[in-house]
Amino acid sequence: MTAAKSVYVRPLDFKHGRVEMSHGSGGRASAQLIATLFAAAFDNDYLRQGNDGAVLPMPPAGSRLVISTDGHVVSPLFFAGGDIGSLAVNGTVNDLSMMGATPLWLSAGFILEEGLPLADLQRIVHSMARAALAAGVLIVTGDTKVVERGKGDGVYITTTGVGYVTTHALAPQNPLSPSPSPVNGRGEDVAPASGEFCVSPAGDRARAGDVILLSGTLGDHGMAIMSQRAGLQFESEITSDSAALHNLVATMLATGADIRVMRDPTRGGLASALNEIAQQSGVGMVLEEAQIPVKKSVAAACEFLGLDPLNVANEGKLVAICALSDAARLLSAMRAHPLARDAAIIGEVIADAACFVQMQTKLGGRRMVDQLHGEPLPRIC
Amino acid sequence: MTAAKSVYVRPLDFKHGRVEMSHGSGGRASAQLIATLFAAAFDNDYLRQGNDGAVLPMPPAGSRLVISTDGHVVSPLFFAGGDIGSLAVNGTVNDLSMMGATPLWLSAGFILEEGLPLADLQRIVHSMARAALAAGVLIVTGDTKVVERGKGDGVYITTTGVGYVTTHALAPQNPLSPSPSPVNGRGEDVAPASGEFCVSPAGDRARAGDVILLSGTLGDHGMAIMSQRAGLQFESEITSDSAALHNLVATMLATGADIRVMRDPTRGGLASALNEIAQQSGVGMVLEEAQIPVKKSVAAACEFLGLDPLNVANEGKLVAICALSDAARLLSAMRAHPLARDAAIIGEVIADAACFVQMQTKLGGRRMVDQLHGEPLPRIC
Repeated sequence: MTAAKSVYVRPLDFKHGRVEMSHGSGGRASAQLIATLFAAAFDNDYLRQGNDGAVLPMPPAGSRLVISTDGHVVSPLFFAGGDIGSLAVNGTVNDLSMMGATPLWLSAGFILEEGLPLADLQRIVHSMARAALAAGVLIVTGDTKVVERGKGDGVYITTTGVGYVTTHALAPQNPLSPSPSPVNGRGEDVAPASGEFCVSPAGDRARAGDVILLSGTLGDHGMAIMSQRAGLQFESEITSDSAALHNLVATMLATGADIRVMRDPTRGGLASALNEIAQQSGVGMVLEEAQIPVKKSVAAACEFLGLDPLNVANEGKLVAICALSDAARLLSAMRAHPLARDAAIIGEVIADAACFVQMQTKLGGRRMVDQLHGEPLPRIC
Repeated sequence: MTAAKSVYVRPLDFKHGRVEMSHGSGGRASAQLIATLFAAAFDNDYLRQGNDGAVLPMPPAGSRLVISTDGHVVSPLFFAGGDIGSLAVNGTVNDLSMMGATPLWLSAGFILEEGLPLADLQRIVHSMARAALAAGVLIVTGDTKVVERGKGDGVYITTTGVGYVTTHALAPQNPLSPSPSPVNGRGEDVAPASGEFCVSPAGDRARAGDVILLSGTLGDHGMAIMSQRAGLQFESEITSDSAALHNLVATMLATGADIRVMRDPTRGGLASALNEIAQQSGVGMVLEEAQIPVKKSVAAACEFLGLDPLNVANEGKLVAICALSDAARLLSAMRAHPLARDAAIIGEVIADAACFVQMQTKLGGRRMVDQLHGEPLPRIC
């Protein structure tokens, strides 16, 4: 038996063991945790390179890179319909998808708290691996740090996603929304062939007359977390909608509809997402309350806790804004997809220099849909 | 004054203010923190896109993407020679550089603890901006979460770096080190033109007869942190070596030397780095203690605390392994660079199936250079 092979004297105890400071040391204990848990669960050619990063093939010629990052600090770590692991994968896959990108690779940075049961960590890592497999992405590189008991909360996971959007050999349709400047970080020209441009959906592309579509019911994720955290029992269990939306997005893009904006209404809910878009695009919006789908159980829980479903986080929904002429076609494509069966047209974009988002209520009045200052539900994702 | 413009009623108080839970809410308080601190400090075209990610030009044709991620949890946040902000930028720039990559872009995920003084956060963010500028990289996207008092430790920063390595129209020189498999995450073929391959340094490329070079003194970062944490006073202040090494690496690569492996000996120190490389490459190593540069003050501090400089973290040093025939040329190029004035040849690679790293001591004996189980200095980076 060589030294190289006898390095791991005592196997990790995934039943009763806990995360120790040594697991973040960069020494043997770190190497053991990485080899027997992370590398085993996420196994792929790039991760197997075993260096401090991954060397990857370049996405197809003529495309643009898309990068997005998200920290995940959800509490509790496990909830009805998901856990921090699947959330960390789906959340970043969705951020890429909202920009019209095809997600390819993820990096994962773990900050573990001393004392976290290894069984919990294993469950989270396996959940990430399953979510990545389902979303067709590979976790190609990662990092693990450990902080002392009381300096963390079990585990925080920061995922960064890399994907690509295809460019098209067309003149830009919207001069207000230029494609990114064709230089890299060092100022070198790395532009695609002249005349190409990139039509990925972006927050500044909404125009008066456009239609606002929502892919399904609001508030499921936030109220699942909240009811679990508060120990509330509702008639029917509320389940998080945590899901990867890349496939739904591909279906939507395949219709050829001119989708100006896509966004996943996570933290801050639909209200934050729409207010941000209204300001980025310099437009107003009017929503129809009667058209906004909310599950009965979620509506009841919101009422009980004094929350507006429009302010509550979602993790498997998207809002899309498209040209009026494409809306019916887009809606029917969405409804044919399992993740958007309850999709609905919920309002329209109007000209409004004040960038107000308003709502036509069920009672016939109009109210402002305002972005909150804070968040009624901290650490929701 | 429109609503869009009156959103930020009270400006952030960067003198006496503190991070609040609402700053992580996804509502107005989040938007204000992002706009007035992060976006202002990191300002660039991609960040200004204002979406949940960045659309970027593709690196030069014929290159490969390189991605690396690192969480930073160093304590204290500010130390002699640096802070968590510059460390988070330099650490990830260095991980890319060690793979022979040209770093282009960074993402930054912040996990803030409620109560962190905004003045501290501002100082950290400005330090990151300066470090990014110095390293020629852009921070193109980010994320901010806030956790309750006692669930964090001021701030944790996870940075992910994206860069590229150039491929060469040559047959591979080392059949043991294949270039990465030419498929993307979806199994599609995205290989560069046939015959190209990628010669980035990698941990499995060391061979018996190769020479081991170190760019400078060992242990500066770890002992700077440690002496500050323990409130120790040494005769001369020990300063962290935190620095971005991409420029030194470019100088080294420009010599044309066949650099088989590069690694920055951070957590776990030189001992961990060399043991890992020895095992990846299936070789042994013999170091010459007398050739390993250690500052007097660092050596004294290590002796006082019972630590071996070979186990102590560095944040601005690299170890390189190259062919014997290239070593003199590489060493002289390194010594001409301000970040490697003390560079030295510290040992050689030998054939050894047991993958032992040994050291010829100053006293004439030989001892094993072992990777520790844990780390004498937790949360060093």
